[in-house]
Amino acid sequence: MKLSKELIEKSKEPFISELENYINSDVELIVKVKSKRLLENKNGKRYLLITFEDKTGILRAIDWFNAEKNNSKVDVGNVVRVNGKIVLYDGRLQLNIPQDSNLIVLNENEYSYERFVSESKIPVDEIISKLFEIIESIRNKELKQLLEEIFKNDEELFNKFKNSPAGLKVHHNYIGGLAEHSITVAKMCDNVAKIYPWLDRDLLITGALLHDIGKIYDYEINSKGIEITQTGELIGHIVMGYEIVNEKIKKLNLRGISEKLLHMILSHHGELEWGSPILPKTPEAFVLHMIENLDSKLNRIQNIKEKELETNPNKKWSDFDPNLGRRLLLKHTERG
Amino acid sequence: MKLSKELIEKSKEPFISELENYINSDVELIVKVKSKRLLENKNGKRYLLITFEDKTGILRAIDWFNAEKNNSKVDVGNVVRVNGKIVLYDGRLQLNIPQDSNLIVLNENEYSYERFVSESKIPVDEIISKLFEIIESIRNKELKQLLEEIFKNDEELFNKFKNSPAGLKVHHNYIGGLAEHSITVAKMCDNVAKIYPWLDRDLLITGALLHDIGKIYDYEINSKGIEITQTGELIGHIVMGYEIVNEKIKKLNLRGISEKLLHMILSHHGELEWGSPILPKTPEAFVLHMIENLDSKLNRIQNIKEKELETNPNKKWSDFDPNLGRRLLLKHTERG
Amino acid sequence: MKLSKELIEKSKEPFISELENYINSDVELIVKVKSKRLLENKNGKRYLLITFEDKTGILRAIDWFNAEKNNSKVDVGNVVRVNGKIVLYDGRLQLNIPQDSNLIVLNENEYSYERFVSESKIPVDEIISKLFEIIESIRNKELKQLLEEIFKNDEELFNKFKNSPAGLKVHHNYIGGLAEHSITVAKMCDNVAKIYPWLDRDLLITGALLHDIGKIYDYEINSKGIEITQTGELIGHIVMGYEIVNEKIKKLNLRGISEKLLHMILSHHGELEWGSPILPKTPEAFVLHMIENLDSKLNRIQNIKEKELETNPNKKWSDFDPNLGRRLLLKHTERG
Amino acid sequence: MKLSKELIEKSKEPFISELENYINSDVELIVKVKSKRLLENKNGKRYLLITFEDKTGILRAIDWFNAEKNNSKVDVGNVVRVNGKIVLYDGRLQLNIPQDSNLIVLNENEYSYERFVSESKIPVDEIISKLFEIIESIRNKELKQLLEEIFKNDEELFNKFKNSPAGLKVHHNYIGGLAEHSITVAKMCDNVAKIYPWLDRDLLITGALLHDIGKIYDYEINSKGIEITQTGELIGHIVMGYEIVNEKIKKLNLRGISEKLLHMILSHHGELEWGSPILPKTPEAFVLHMIENLDSKLNRIQNIKEKELETNPNKKWSDFDPNLGRRLLLKHTERG
Amino acid sequence: MKLSKELIEKSKEPFISELENYINSDVELIVKVKSKRLLENKNGKRYLLITFEDKTGILRAIDWFNAEKNNSKVDVGNVVRVNGKIVLYDGRLQLNIPQDSNLIVLNENEYSYERFVSESKIPVDEIISKLFEIIESIRNKELKQLLEEIFKNDEELFNKFKNSPAGLKVHHNYIGGLAEHSITVAKMCDNVAKIYPWLDRDLLITGALLHDIGKIYDYEINSKGIEITQTGELIGHIVMGYEIVNEKIKKLNLRGISEKLLHMILSHHGELEWGSPILPKTPEAFVLHMIENLDSKLNRIQNIKEKELETNPNKKWSDFDPNLGRRLLLKHTERG
Amino acid sequence: MKLSKELIEKSKEPFISELENYINSDVELIVKVKSKRLLENKNGKRYLLITFEDKTGILRAIDWFNAEKNNSKVDVGNVVRVNGKIVLYDGRLQLNIPQDSNLIVLNENEYSYERFVSESKIPVDEIISKLFEIIESIRNKELKQLLEEIFKNDEELFNKFKNSPAGLKVHHNYIGGLAEHSITVAKMCDNVAKIYPWLDRDLLITGALLHDIGKIYDYEINSKGIEITQTGELIGHIVMGYEIVNEKIKKLNLRGISEKLLHMILSHHGELEWGSPILPKTPEAFVLHMIENLDSKLNRIQNIKEKELETNPNKKWSDFDPNLGRRLLLKHTERG
Repeated sequence: MKLSKELIEKSKEPFISELENYINSDVELIVKVKSKRLLENKNGKRYLLITFEDKTGILRAIDWFNAEKNNSKVDVGNVVRVNGKIVLYDGRLQLNIPQDSNLIVLNENEYSYERFVSESKIPVDEIISKLFEIIESIRNKELKQLLEEIFKNDEELFNKFKNSPAGLKVHHNYIGGLAEHSITVAKMCDNVAKIYPWLDRDLLITGALLHDIGKIYDYEINSKGIEITQTGELIGHIVMGYEIVNEKIKKLNLRGISEKLLHMILSHHGELEWGSPILPKTPEAFVLHMIENLDSKLNRIQNIKEKELETNPNKKWSDFDPNLGRRLLLKHTERG
Repeated sequence: MKLSKELIEKSKEPFISELENYINSDVELIVKVKSKRLLENKNGKRYLLITFEDKTGILRAIDWFNAEKNNSKVDVGNVVRVNGKIVLYDGRLQLNIPQDSNLIVLNENEYSYERFVSESKIPVDEIISKLFEIIESIRNKELKQLLEEIFKNDEELFNKFKNSPAGLKVHHNYIGGLAEHSITVAKMCDNVAKIYPWLDRDLLITGALLHDIGKIYDYEINSKGIEITQTGELIGHIVMGYEIVNEKIKKLNLRGISEKLLHMILSHHGELEWGSPILPKTPEAFVLHMIENLDSKLNRIQNIKEKELETNPNKKWSDFDPNLGRRLLLKHTERG
Repeated sequence: MKLSKELIEKSKEPFISELENYINSDVELIVKVKSKRLLENKNGKRYLLITFEDKTGILRAIDWFNAEKNNSKVDVGNVVRVNGKIVLYDGRLQLNIPQDSNLIVLNENEYSYERFVSESKIPVDEIISKLFEIIESIRNKELKQLLEEIFKNDEELFNKFKNSPAGLKVHHNYIGGLAEHSITVAKMCDNVAKIYPWLDRDLLITGALLHDIGKIYDYEINSKGIEITQTGELIGHIVMGYEIVNEKIKKLNLRGISEKLLHMILSHHGELEWGSPILPKTPEAFVLHMIENLDSKLNRIQNIKEKELETNPNKKWSDFDPNLGRRLLLKHTERG
Repeated sequence: MKLSKELIEKSKEPFISELENYINSDVELIVKVKSKRLLENKNGKRYLLITFEDKTGILRAIDWFNAEKNNSKVDVGNVVRVNGKIVLYDGRLQLNIPQDSNLIVLNENEYSYERFVSESKIPVDEIISKLFEIIESIRNKELKQLLEEIFKNDEELFNKFKNSPAGLKVHHNYIGGLAEHSITVAKMCDNVAKIYPWLDRDLLITGALLHDIGKIYDYEINSKGIEITQTGELIGHIVMGYEIVNEKIKKLNLRGISEKLLHMILSHHGELEWGSPILPKTPEAFVLHMIENLDSKLNRIQNIKEKELETNPNKKWSDFDPNLGRRLLLKHTERG
Repeated sequence: MKLSKELIEKSKEPFISELENYINSDVELIVKVKSKRLLENKNGKRYLLITFEDKTGILRAIDWFNAEKNNSKVDVGNVVRVNGKIVLYDGRLQLNIPQDSNLIVLNENEYSYERFVSESKIPVDEIISKLFEIIESIRNKELKQLLEEIFKNDEELFNKFKNSPAGLKVHHNYIGGLAEHSITVAKMCDNVAKIYPWLDRDLLITGALLHDIGKIYDYEINSKGIEITQTGELIGHIVMGYEIVNEKIKKLNLRGISEKLLHMILSHHGELEWGSPILPKTPEAFVLHMIENLDSKLNRIQNIKEKELETNPNKKWSDFDPNLGRRLLLKHTERG
Repeated sequence: MKLSKELIEKSKEPFISELENYINSDVELIVKVKSKRLLENKNGKRYLLITFEDKTGILRAIDWFNAEKNNSKVDVGNVVRVNGKIVLYDGRLQLNIPQDSNLIVLNENEYSYERFVSESKIPVDEIISKLFEIIESIRNKELKQLLEEIFKNDEELFNKFKNSPAGLKVHHNYIGGLAEHSITVAKMCDNVAKIYPWLDRDLLITGALLHDIGKIYDYEINSKGIEITQTGELIGHIVMGYEIVNEKIKKLNLRGISEKLLHMILSHHGELEWGSPILPKTPEAFVLHMIENLDSKLNRIQNIKEKELETNPNKKWSDFDPNLGRRLLLKHTERG
């Protein structure tokens, strides 16, 4: 993952999730326009309704004073600086834009992208400490040495790993997503190895931790959110992951690590048509593929449920999800 | 699973796996002809080489005295009563058929099918005690009541469950396979529920234990081994499982059990083209499908590895497996 | 099919199809907004063009007086009460909305859903009388008894059957569609049985009448039109149909009815990927699937032709139909 | 269909189906070797068991005198001249080959292929008279004129039509199969047109009668049975059918026959992947495709049932049929 | 290809590509509205921004005087007559619409379609002269005679060939596209025949020149651009091409031309699911299919690159192309 | 490609293709048993008919003296040393095995594998000289430097390249096949670049020469012929090719070579389901894939034609080829 700019945020504007501490106060916000609508009340008075968002949530705003002017000033997707008063209306927070408001569209260099890219909900320290705990449990010396090289000694690599998402849209599409996904898959694989003791646990867990490492070159974060890089499009994370791990093995001269580890990286998508150049041909490669798939799907399902219920807590069925090819049950009715 | 005959074995003939206790003794065996070959030694003398099998293993036999006669007497697939001496030859046990041998082809009613159908390697008591332990851990009262009705109170159902295979060819195709598969899937699902605590653990585990219950009507054991029944071909275990569980719910009037449980049974094949009439639409149904699939695949992989290495301990790659669509790595070479 | 509300219509407002009797009269209508457009004539005067619809047709309306106000009052999809004068304009009926019009958006409880859900064009009595005639022709006593139980004795079931659609979008998606489809398929199957006399006619026709019976639990009619129920999403009509018929067979103790009938219900979609958990394995199941498919397709084709030609009687090709995967010829040009 | 040789049979040898009139008589037969087996009875005497076949049935033969010599003389697939006595054994006819038998393998020019290619079970006159009856019922003058040109006036074409099979292996793979298939499809289409009166009946029936006409160039009958011709492989019956009908329309200058008829021929396989260069885009083309498919499937199912039950009248399930992708139920077990 | 109207253009209005000769002059143009947007400048003044197009390019226009009036006068897709002054603004040509502008929407009969349908960038004379050169190189007399009949003697056919596009959307979708495609494929096939000298070069090149000849009946050019004809939808260019060439062979009685040529036309789409009724079964048919496919793809890729870079010369990746199923690299970044 | 043993052939036994120089002479041969049959002549005398093969052809042998003994001595697939007299019989060469023959089955270390693995028909020098000519024509200095490093400076790599096959079964499955394939694809790509001058010729040709370089690690030649290696199964030639070229670029620090070259290697199978982890996204990658595919198919077609016609020069159609999914026309019949 290439951070195309330094994500240093100097400004002190609060995030949307912090606004419950500002009720009835004036604030200045840096937010993105998610949608807008120019409306007319029963008396024929025009007003502008905007939904703002940042990575922490969404906020409804209303402008009774400069509706038409501000409407023609901003487009959906613009990042703006806006001031106003936070009020509680209809059970939700709302920003009232005042008559003397100064709504300004910002250029890309006037704000930090980080405001608009989500992060893993699990604190990064917690993820990393779990990672080190897993590495500690590996008994195979060469596999452990390899993991320590990648996750401890090569600081640049490790920093990229911590900040990378594991997806563009479908799953773990937020900063820290790659680490979260890798550790969860490793934990699940550890459980699987307990139930099928004939599996090579150390190999399985090492493969789990490294399977998506190539994704650090797949994505960059910029003003449009997460975008796929040229390397992501032309080479892809599966081959990049192979290259990273293969070079470390060669550098450390770990002659005891067999092709089975690299095979797990190459085959973890499970089927050729899902982008693996080779099918899984060892039990550990099979398990990695299936567990990885399970975690991806559950992460997606969890996201869909949360987003849909956030919008409408009584919704019974999600919208059709083109990635899963179905609607999901959100709340069920008892048979009764 | 319909046991088409009582599988009561009166005879005392030893199984092949017990023959290491009979070296240099005369034995009488009931075995099936797996393959045979009429050969000629360098001196032009004809001899008959037969491979016998029962559910516990395979045995090489040689007949130097009545090669042609016995060759025309038996066909591959016949079950025979045969006597001879057990010797150690070339590091393996072998049956030497004597000149006065009395090789007799048996009719279906002259032996027990049970001799030729494999059983789970895990003792049935162990499986069942794990099953009751899992049921004990369920907190939802109605789900627990349902499981106890099926696995404790309905003795006929439970007996069928204990003896049923979970497959014809692909996986768990032996007596006790259904119970072994159901319990393993439930244990894995329990682990998954620990990692994703937002899942409904009790629902997930109940679905895991019941998902293949309809297979008790899918198979019958007869002289040809495991065969699919008319019900298996015309209705199928997915719908039979739905029917069994649905009727128990109605009988016990368990109004708190929602359609989500029945949905898990119907959708556990995961895709329409794999025979589920409905796609998984709840997180628990997704998990059940994916874990069930993982256990089936691992059981098949384990079986392939064992069988291929039993035949040839140095084999590096399995034969092409049409069900998995690939060859499997049996023993790897170090990169060195 | 669950009628989520009583569909009792008290009001006397005419349907759109009845308006040809009201030319140059003032009417009050309850209609749904299908589309609307705020326009300007050459003199710069704004007017509002609305297309209204109910289950009987579509109606063009024009508002020269309160264009902007009414435009901001209604959204596409709203059900409204509106008054005005019916005139003939450009060869079609049109509603002129007067200056003192009182266009009111109605809440769900202020009108009957029935106004907006189509019905079979064949009168229900005609369908039902044909149904009884077919049942009368069955010679197999148990099959006849089963049909009479479902279509005569179980009044609740029969009422649902009469009112249910057989589809959401693709075919027979109107009240009475299930009955119409079932009877047409049965008539066709009767013809097939005449041409292939070795088929079991009674079995075939019974399967034809019952194959979609589970759809009575698949759909509900509400303010959004026809919607799929939770049972429809989680269980599906194929398994529900199996359950209904299986329970009736058990209740009546019809031991002569074989698994072949239930097999026909389960396999009538013909392929696993179309949602049948089992493939057709009897000639009657094959015929039912293929005839059922033919009737569904012809119903869809007929609907497309009618709707497209209603809108534009000179159109030569339909729009691309995503369900059929092609355009359909509406009117052909002679070669000559 | 190209008859690669004159199929004139001069010899008077009886067909297998006629042998019940020859019990205990000596006969001379021209038959094909379907299978053979060299066996040994309990006394060690070798005998040869052969199954012969011709287009009318199969016949078991036994040779106690020259078992080894005759075994090495004939191969499976050879056509032979053989004499012997017809006896009734075990409820079936059997040929006993005498000591002085003269078993001769024939060359291709020493017998007529016709002996070994099946014919439709429906007498050709019956098929043809039904054909003319259908043509008579057509009201559209140009369509009728076209059909009369093809089926009455063009004698060469009509003779080919009468003798052609409609398939190689899958369905109607016998002399007269094309005519039988075409007429049955037309009868079914006539029935469909009665139920959906908005269909163009005359067009539909004309398409039904002509849809496979190109098959007269697809097959030739030779010593190997039915074989596909070079034209069949390089051009195919769909385009040949188009060409035949198109040239007749041009020759007769039938300007009222639209492209819809030719479209039906081109699209009757229903899907591109089944070899139609164009999808059905008219209701009549849809119906033709689906009815044609139904008749093909039913013919295949009927053949499988007859052949399997002929061999084993108690068989419950057919072998797996690769064309249908499943086993078929032959005889069902009652539930009760 | 049916030219539904004479494409004679009397008017002298310049094409967009000629406007660089008119900078600072007043012009009158006939152009199509590609997009429009009613905007407001910072002072609240409304202006209308229109993008016009003809077959030679696109042109930005601005109207400061009658923004609202003209906005309500034209719709996207309208062809208009408009006058104004050509200026250079921001490095691009722009049309300034004056206060007394007379923007008129034209009816279909008031302009020539030709203005809006692209043409091959290669001059037609160049294409044709290359065609004759290729024909001249054919040594097989009958194939040469066939080509001369089609491309020289049958003037009507040849004219259609010269003016026909080879596609609707995907590739060579402009006047002259068919000829350009056919000649390029023939040139490539000539090269292939040099590398594999065992191929029949004359047959291959003849097939290349004739493979898409049926497209002359697939398309018509009208006010909506290129549209598919009824013949194109119901019969298709593959069968039409077969018919054209087959009739010429019969007419000229070219008995030495084998079915292999017609087979190449029928099989050139390469797979049944791509609309060929027959698979390629000769080496020449394989080559034609693969080379034809290569030229189609390269033409599409070239068009995408040109159009995307014309709009935005710095774009790195094309939009997702549904036909190719991917994005294309437009400008790459060095690895550095 | 790993040559698992030194392929040094000391022995002087002639190859089958050289036997026309030995007619009526006694020879000693090292050959493989392709098939054998124990037969009986009319007088009841048994003889043994064997077909031998080496990489240069097939040879019929007959043994009238020790038929049964030698039959039981050898199995199909054995490599044997055999002596006898070469005679001309029925227009073909034949080996007559004498009474005192000494037919010996050889162990793997008693002969050279090379005798049984085919080689390219094009002499290796010719291929290599063409390779250097192509490299010479590259103008881009870095690409040229890369090619010279791989094909000139790294001798070990180059030797492997010269001896490697490019396939196991489907195409170029002989020693030198990789070089032959790579050069032919490069020549074709050169031609394509002439016709589409906007392509990057140097990049295209470099990609063509290197696309399959990873195959040097995919295969090994041993007693079973060509076998896939562990690296071939677990990593595959696409990723190995990426690794080889990537390391050379890094070693030489060729910073001007962009990811587009590596992308061509990764995407040259064209579709994910054919094993490319990434789709072609540049024009050069598209061309490489399509040309590479064309050469593979033509090589396979050429091989099938040669082999089938060698066996039967009058055969009209090849056997069904499962890889191509069809039969191929071998010799056509004229229409005339």
